[in-house]
Parts: sequence; structure tokens; C-alpha cells
Amino acid sequence: MSDSPRRRIPEAALGRLPVYLRILVDLASDSVTRVSSEQLAELAAVNAAKVRKDLSYLGTYGTRGVGYDVQFLTYQIQRELGLNQSWPIVIVGAGNLGQALANFSGISERGFHIVGVVDKDSSKIGSLVGGVRVTHADELAQIVQAKSVSIGIIATPAQHAQEAADSLVRAGVGSIMNFAPTVLNVPEGVNVRKVDLALELQILSYYEQCRNTSNVTPADTATGAVSA
Amino acid sequence: MSDSPRRRIPEAALGRLPVYLRILVDLASDSVTRVSSEQLAELAAVNAAKVRKDLSYLGTYGTRGVGYDVQFLTYQIQRELGLNQSWPIVIVGAGNLGQALANFSGISERGFHIVGVVDKDSSKIGSLVGGVRVTHADELAQIVQAKSVSIGIIATPAQHAQEAADSLVRAGVGSIMNFAPTVLNVPEGVNVRKVDLALELQILSYYEQCRNTSNVTPADTATGAVSA
Repeated sequence: MSDSPRRRIPEAALGRLPVYLRILVDLASDSVTRVSSEQLAELAAVNAAKVRKDLSYLGTYGTRGVGYDVQFLTYQIQRELGLNQSWPIVIVGAGNLGQALANFSGISERGFHIVGVVDKDSSKIGSLVGGVRVTHADELAQIVQAKSVSIGIIATPAQHAQEAADSLVRAGVGSIMNFAPTVLNVPEGVNVRKVDLALELQILSYYEQCRNTSNVTPADTATGAVSA
Repeated sequence: MSDSPRRRIPEAALGRLPVYLRILVDLASDSVTRVSSEQLAELAAVNAAKVRKDLSYLGTYGTRGVGYDVQFLTYQIQRELGLNQSWPIVIVGAGNLGQALANFSGISERGFHIVGVVDKDSSKIGSLVGGVRVTHADELAQIVQAKSVSIGIIATPAQHAQEAADSLVRAGVGSIMNFAPTVLNVPEGVNVRKVDLALELQILSYYEQCRNTSNVTPADTATGAVSA
């Protein structure tokens, strides 16, 4: 890979780039124009050396005593994550979660746009979800080809998720975001990211338990919360 | 803190415990009874030394050449995360996302149970969501006290999230999971965890961009996906 035109970013560093990005967008909305690695580190709950290392993969190095330019760093992370292009997305499952995702401003604002929502339930077909008409799951491959979809979202109940994944893979989708609480089997070369809606709840219950059973207060970790 | 009855788990290690837990539950459902740190590491996309270090915070050490007992390790992580007790939860916002969360089996199966869903929209009040009757947001404090709620979920649009957080804090809720794409201001001592539904999408778009623009294939990172 040494002659690759693109350096590979390690998985852990990659996972932090969207976190930095969100912080930068928040800072920009507060009219902040420069940020130090120490500030970014505190807001992202990592250490400053890690921030500098992560950002060095983008070929960017803050200026000592001056920090990073918020706007330029935002641009660099967006470019690295491929967010300066538009990604057509299809959602499998038009239930509450599928509808919530189709309407979620945090998705559409970041370069993703929903071009199809499919379901097997005939009562849902034809309804308008996030501005998109729900079509039958049988039409998935057709939508994927017509709209050049490369990313699919699975928002079905757990027992239908594997079937949804199989359909997406057959249709040629190479990246899948899975919201169903189940493990998917996909061929090599297909990327699956699983979103566990209950994961953060389990971290909160840890802190609540600490609060209730010991003299350790969670106050010192309040800034550890990603949104702090 | 040296005389604390409970050792504090570092934030990063804590964040991986729910990931290990999900893997263990999946392994158990496949009738796997023992797992090595190397296997856990591969499934969680971290290195084996880190797995062993993380689990050492629970006071547990796998047996060399034998690994960890899946069932006992599951119990230990659940106990550490406080999942062997029941956590009453209130959801603010009865829209699609609130409804999806109230119905999400991945939440109810892990020791959390939804005891209240509130909304300000009178058209939603009285409807049944995840088996719970939606009540007016004005009744939040009453529900929190009556049901001893310590964890609140914000599933409102972004522009109502701060108001929801203020209400939860006033009602005495100390832990908040925020799904709204916005930053919340809360008093010290209140834990906020933000869930960014679009975060994983941004990681997928990185890999898609790699796939399209270079000779780096994402195949070698397919196992890096949490669900692989």
C-alpha cells in the first residue's frame, strides 16, 4: 500500500474524525475561528497528543500557540471523510426508525441524501417519508442502479435485517449501516457499521450506579460526555 | 478516590465494555462458551492487549490458553455497567424517533424500561407508544418522582432539545442521552451522552471514497466493522 495515492487512516483515528467535525461545526456556529489541540481534546474527551496525531493523517499540523483554523480544519475533515460530495442513500424499513432517519436533519446536512425508502409492508408503500415515496422492497435493486446508491441503511426489525442485507448486497451496495440489533453476514469487501442505540444508555447506567453506590461522583467525567 | 469502594474505569475502556458485551451475547446465542482475548479483540476491532487491560478493570483475567468464560464475563460486564438492575427511563419527544426507541427491543432487553413518554404536541398525548401512554411534557417532573427515573432520553427536534434538557434537570434527572443534533448546556454533575445517528455514515463515506478514488480496497477493514 506504500504506493497508494491515499494514506490509510487507522480505524480508531477515523472514528474520532466525525467527533472533531461535529465539535468544529459547533465552534463555528459560536463564531469561534481558531482552536487549539488542547481545546479540541477536552471537547472530544481524548488527550491533546492524540488529537494532533489524528489530524496529522490529514496532513495538517496546527501552529504552536495559534492552533488550527476552524474553517479550514472543517474543510479538511469533510474532504477526508468524503463529505464534500453527495451520497445517495437508500433506507430499508419504513417504520418509526426509518422515518426518523429519513427526516433527520443531521443526515441531510452532511452530504447524504435519501433517494429511496423501501418496505415489504403494503400499508406503508406509497406514503411520503422525508420527502421520498416509499416503494416495495422488490424495487430495491432498481433504485440502487437508477440512483447510483452505494450506501444502504437497515432500519428493519432484527428478524428481517439479514434479508435486507442480502438484498442490498445483491443490488450492489458496498456499505451498510445497520440499526437492527443483530449481527449480519456479508461477503468480504462489503463494509458494515453497526449502530447500537442502547450503547450509550449502558454507559449512563454505569455512572448512575457509581453515583448510587459509592462516593465517586460523576462530576469529574461530565466533560467526558461527547456533547459537553 | 483511593478509598473508593469502586475503581473508576477510564472513559475509553468504559466505552468498549458495551461492545464486548454485545459480542459476548452474540457468541452465547451461537452456543460459544469460551472466548480468547484475541477473538474478542478481532470482533471488537481493537488489539488483544487492550481487551485484557479493559477487562482487568473488572478484576477478571482470562486463563492463558483457555480464555474467558462467556457466561461469567457477560455477567461481570453487566454487573459493572449496572445492567443487572432495572433502570426506569423517560423519553422526551413522541415523534418517530421517540416511538422507535420506545419500541426498540435492544433497550428493553438490557435492563432499561420505559416508564414515561412525554410530548408537547397535544395530538400525540394519549396515544400508546411502546406500551406507554404519552403524557404532556408538563407532567415530566411528576413521572420522574413517581417512577424514580434517573435517566432521560431526548428525542425532540434540535430546537427543543435544550428545553427538554432543562426540564429533565429540574425534575432531578442526572443522566441524559441526547439524540438531537445539538449541544446541550447542563449543570455540573449531570451526565450527557450524545448519540450521533450520522456518525457511522461518515465513516462509511470515507471507505466508499477510498474505494472509488484509489487502489486501496476496503476489504481489509471489513472485519474492522463492529458487527463483522
